[in-house]
Amino acid sequence: MGRVTERRKVLRIRDGAVSTRPDTLVAEEPLEIRLNGKPLAITMRTPGDDFALAAGFLVSEGVLGSASDLRNIVYCAGATADGANTYNVVDVSTTPGVALPDFTLERNVYTSSSCGLCGKASLDAVRTTARWPIADTPPLRLTPGLLAALPDRLRAAQRVFDRTGGLHAAALFDEDGELLDTREDVGRHNAVDKLVGRALRDDALPLSRTILMVSGRASFELAQKAVMAGIPVLAAVSAPSSLAVDLAAETGLTLVGFLRGSSMNVYAGEHRIALREAAAQG
Amino acid sequence: MGRVTERRKVLRIRDGAVSTRPDTLVAEEPLEIRLNGKPLAITMRTPGDDFALAAGFLVSEGVLGSASDLRNIVYCAGATADGANTYNVVDVSTTPGVALPDFTLERNVYTSSSCGLCGKASLDAVRTTARWPIADTPPLRLTPGLLAALPDRLRAAQRVFDRTGGLHAAALFDEDGELLDTREDVGRHNAVDKLVGRALRDDALPLSRTILMVSGRASFELAQKAVMAGIPVLAAVSAPSSLAVDLAAETGLTLVGFLRGSSMNVYAGEHRIALREAAAQG
Repeated sequence: MGRVTERRKVLRIRDGAVSTRPDTLVAEEPLEIRLNGKPLAITMRTPGDDFALAAGFLVSEGVLGSASDLRNIVYCAGATADGANTYNVVDVSTTPGVALPDFTLERNVYTSSSCGLCGKASLDAVRTTARWPIADTPPLRLTPGLLAALPDRLRAAQRVFDRTGGLHAAALFDEDGELLDTREDVGRHNAVDKLVGRALRDDALPLSRTILMVSGRASFELAQKAVMAGIPVLAAVSAPSSLAVDLAAETGLTLVGFLRGSSMNVYAGEHRIALREAAAQG
Repeated sequence: MGRVTERRKVLRIRDGAVSTRPDTLVAEEPLEIRLNGKPLAITMRTPGDDFALAAGFLVSEGVLGSASDLRNIVYCAGATADGANTYNVVDVSTTPGVALPDFTLERNVYTSSSCGLCGKASLDAVRTTARWPIADTPPLRLTPGLLAALPDRLRAAQRVFDRTGGLHAAALFDEDGELLDTREDVGRHNAVDKLVGRALRDDALPLSRTILMVSGRASFELAQKAVMAGIPVLAAVSAPSSLAVDLAAETGLTLVGFLRGSSMNVYAGEHRIALREAAAQG
């Protein structure tokens, strides 16, 4: 609980000088997510916001869509042999009528074993599972100038990173570029799940007038999480992968990469970028 | 097969100027790993070296320890409905007598559900599963100067990163700092699995006289992969997590973080660092 950082002794070597001092590290612990009592997944995460993480994970997996789908979330006391509560096992109970998926493998499973596996099948599975098709979201137009301001705002809100250098950050902004929420975690997917899970518990899904910004790269998994939460714009400081771009193109997600200073690359969904304004700014 | 990068059209915005041009992206595709025909895990990876990835994954999970444990590895043709080979499903066959684990959840599962879940249990599971205890490896002494030279060598060997900015790199060096092998992947754990799997197929495990260097952070999972392959030194450009440091301290792994220029932090296993030399260099 609240163990976001931990202290360890470190041997520091700087240009040949050796010293010993305490160092602040980002905390990493396993979290087991159970669904109605059944173990579903384990993720290595930074403790804190665990209920939001579990809820957001289940949004990404298509299980939860609104606060009313959720009966409650609890830490499983007595999960260890000595009966102690490790605060590393959470159980999510759904309300009657919530359809439960058949999870047979690990978390990134979108295809049945009979259909084989290809990138196209992964795209199709996200598109058909999404509750709120991105292409149907209300029109949203963002200027390049607004997007360019986001990285500094994200960095200003990254408190733990400054102390440890070890965290990924994710943030939600509204269409005016105002910061709505931010989370940090050792796992970039966990930071996004925590944002989405918080929004679910506030019954704020779909997040159809927001921008999701991540501190690192844009993988397929992050694009998938944006789509599943109804977020129409994903912006990343670093590069996207090919499958993230393909998913964005297929679902209508606006995908911005290499967002640094006044520069950015738009890989898909460019209809949401106000380009005339970009030219006028030049 | 060999789809390490892919080309996509991108809208480039630079200081208000807008242009369209082709961009090179790192390829990301799902890989399903089967063990003796049974689906075991799916990872999002950069295609290429898939057999090494599958073999290395199974070393990390404690299934494989030598080339003789491996009967063969094949792509599953006909895995899709239309019978095409996606080259995204590999099946690893073990030789008779290889003990097969009971995989019930996803890949990072080191504890039975009855024992609950805590960081300590994760550490214990790695320590008891490791075939080649790091503490028992032959003495190895490295100077800070040797370690300081590794990041530049890793970067020089990172070919795809230069074109896409989207890859994690991992490299194996010998005790003289000579580069033995390097791999790049969208997933940092995949890059390490590919290195270890290649070594297994060359029957070079344990890697007890090598240094594993990674381009990013040192998570629990990466430290675990080093320990399971018998690698005594893990060096990272960025920060380690608390659980990575705890695992290193418990198993005798030397863990170096923030390895940049002539600076580094040694979080565990400092007996392998030749500190007198560091002072003399100062």
